Amino acid sequence: MYKDLNTPIRTILTPGPVEVDPRVLRVMSAPILGQFDPAFTDIMNEVMDMLRKLFKTDNQWAFPVDGTSRSGIEAMLCSVIEPGDRVLVPVFGRFGYLLMEICERYGAEVKAIHQEWGAVFDPKAVIQEMDDWKPDIVAMVHAETSTGCMQPLKEIGQACRERHLYFIVDAVASVGGVDVRVDEWFIDGLIAGTQKCLSVPAGMSPLTYNERIQKRIARRKKVERGIATEEELQQKAATFIKSNYFDLSMLQDYWGPRRLNHHTEATSMLYALREGLRLVLNEGLENRFERHKYHERALVSGLKAMGMELFGDTSAKLPTVTCIKIPDGADGDSVRRMLLDQFGIEIATSFGPLHGKILRVGTMGYSCRRENILTFLGAFEAVLIRHGILVEKGAALQAALDYYTNENKLSN
Amino acid sequence: MYKDLNTPIRTILTPGPVEVDPRVLRVMSAPILGQFDPAFTDIMNEVMDMLRKLFKTDNQWAFPVDGTSRSGIEAMLCSVIEPGDRVLVPVFGRFGYLLMEICERYGAEVKAIHQEWGAVFDPKAVIQEMDDWKPDIVAMVHAETSTGCMQPLKEIGQACRERHLYFIVDAVASVGGVDVRVDEWFIDGLIAGTQKCLSVPAGMSPLTYNERIQKRIARRKKVERGIATEEELQQKAATFIKSNYFDLSMLQDYWGPRRLNHHTEATSMLYALREGLRLVLNEGLENRFERHKYHERALVSGLKAMGMELFGDTSAKLPTVTCIKIPDGADGDSVRRMLLDQFGIEIATSFGPLHGKILRVGTMGYSCRRENILTFLGAFEAVLIRHGILVEKGAALQAALDYYTNENKLSN
Repeated sequence: MYKDLNTPIRTILTPGPVEVDPRVLRVMSAPILGQFDPAFTDIMNEVMDMLRKLFKTDNQWAFPVDGTSRSGIEAMLCSVIEPGDRVLVPVFGRFGYLLMEICERYGAEVKAIHQEWGAVFDPKAVIQEMDDWKPDIVAMVHAETSTGCMQPLKEIGQACRERHLYFIVDAVASVGGVDVRVDEWFIDGLIAGTQKCLSVPAGMSPLTYNERIQKRIARRKKVERGIATEEELQQKAATFIKSNYFDLSMLQDYWGPRRLNHHTEATSMLYALREGLRLVLNEGLENRFERHKYHERALVSGLKAMGMELFGDTSAKLPTVTCIKIPDGADGDSVRRMLLDQFGIEIATSFGPLHGKILRVGTMGYSCRRENILTFLGAFEAVLIRHGILVEKGAALQAALDYYTNENKLSN
Repeated sequence: MYKDLNTPIRTILTPGPVEVDPRVLRVMSAPILGQFDPAFTDIMNEVMDMLRKLFKTDNQWAFPVDGTSRSGIEAMLCSVIEPGDRVLVPVFGRFGYLLMEICERYGAEVKAIHQEWGAVFDPKAVIQEMDDWKPDIVAMVHAETSTGCMQPLKEIGQACRERHLYFIVDAVASVGGVDVRVDEWFIDGLIAGTQKCLSVPAGMSPLTYNERIQKRIARRKKVERGIATEEELQQKAATFIKSNYFDLSMLQDYWGPRRLNHHTEATSMLYALREGLRLVLNEGLENRFERHKYHERALVSGLKAMGMELFGDTSAKLPTVTCIKIPDGADGDSVRRMLLDQFGIEIATSFGPLHGKILRVGTMGYSCRRENILTFLGAFEAVLIRHGILVEKGAALQAALDYYTNENKLSN
């Protein structure tokens, strides 16, 4: 006989997956509905409506793909990219590589330009590259959790629109935590995630796209054998969307008024997404962004008082991820292990060139709470001391408490 | 302000999604864990172990894809199929078309052979076609929910193995409800679903594959730019797996001991799958299969007593789906609507040539319970009478109650 599921309670301060709001967890226990039950399609419509508000867009199409964040990225890219398309990918961290990788798989000619990890691009450099290389599509990450940096997008978006390029943005790590303005920033297609600032479990990827992309995918629509002429089959073969599961032209027929059967919508995950969105919108987007910055300041004040140094260009800092340079002589993986084993606190390392160099603390969504910041600072000091690192003893918590008691602007 | 989620309670008797066991719903409320937390990777390993038992296989690889059932089908097919591969698809209902459609998208040369809807293939006919057309792969559905028929597979699997073909089976609708024997039936790759006989919400697709497929996908592994030579990039370009999200060679590195980062596992869905599998295995596979047949007999005895006629070849009947011919003069969609609106009971129609001809009643997993069978029979009779259909009044429930009180073999 297998035993009951029995999971430990953790304090999760990684850049995803983050703690899920208990109210979101609760709705996942609601009994399911059939996918074409009017009570369920009403929920689908509500979710689309809430996503438009979250994304600050008037786009008709805003719905989740049933899969983790990279499923949304792949759905967007594979629906838009035709073999031979030229895609410019400005890379400033690990997730830029993922965009390249997916574009390549779907037959794009990809050109990357690179920025040093820990900084972002001067928009003018990206625009210059557009004019030199003349891509069809620019695809880039908004918030790089791997480096804790956030790229300003509006100027790049405007330049794309003026040049009739498509601008596709991976905003998995930013949506719900910092301001994202799809329409105002001229973003044609944008992908978000659930398990970061929305504080919903991993397993869905909300996205949105405008009429420009809608028209492009409409002409790539695959006409199914049995109803297509031989000529149509030949004609379409070169350009149809490779994936069935990720074909946005079919997904939109399922999410739209036609309700054409595609997959069976992931009921409980949709309940969770609806509740997560409801909590975000009821909190108020601007209040929520301010809350993330508020606790970020407490965290940073504690870390600095302790004697820690932050990594990266602070003017480009993502408010929801704080990267700490690992002090000389400390083994970052050992620090993380002790935090998890002794305190039940999870923080993250980074990838590639930054592995072993920085630790990353995520303060996203429901994880972004006063008690988590304070618990972490106290534990981190103790663990660093156990690792022989000289810190200003007791200073971190006093600095954070000073901040919280003096700047008593928010109650949580 | 958006309101709380407030969903009606339904009696769901469709061939999926079906009612979720309350114990499964409950575990979805458990707080999440980080994806590389040892407490979580232990759960991943447990799920793999339970899936092997469910599939009756010794395969090393048995894990879920994070997406609905067709995501697993696409992951399997796109990882195995190389452009130009010849795939034979014996079609005996709607979901055979889905296999064809996905194979075509990934560049296969597809040949379908067709069996009349409501019947299954004589395995010899399929084997003859293998010998005539000489495919590389045979892909077929095990249980067609669209027609309520189940295809015997062992003879076909053995013939595939003898001819060194790959045999891929869509068992989305059968796994957990009827016997499926991956190893004994010579199945190389098999895909299951969660929202049917496992009674777990939609959103995951467990699959398994053997060493033959593992070797094939190993040589299709994409070498990432940055570590590959130009020659390697050229060489691989023709054969690498098109999808990143569905690339089984990467998924297995995430599920295996290497734990290479791919997606962020859908935590709450994995909890649900684990609990669903635990309940299935604790009930006992053979007991569970017997329970499905037990309630099927009650349902059929009631329907026949009422004067209904079943659709399809009864010798090939899937125990978990019962197809009822719509009586002359009745509008099937109106019958379904009245069942839902007045009784909160959901049953299904069918697709294409069978739409308007049959109604489908699913008795899968947690939905397959005595009270659901009885509630449905009573309601169905009343609704048919309201639609002017002559039925043997009162007979259905008496027949089912006779069955349940006389054949008191199972307590639920």
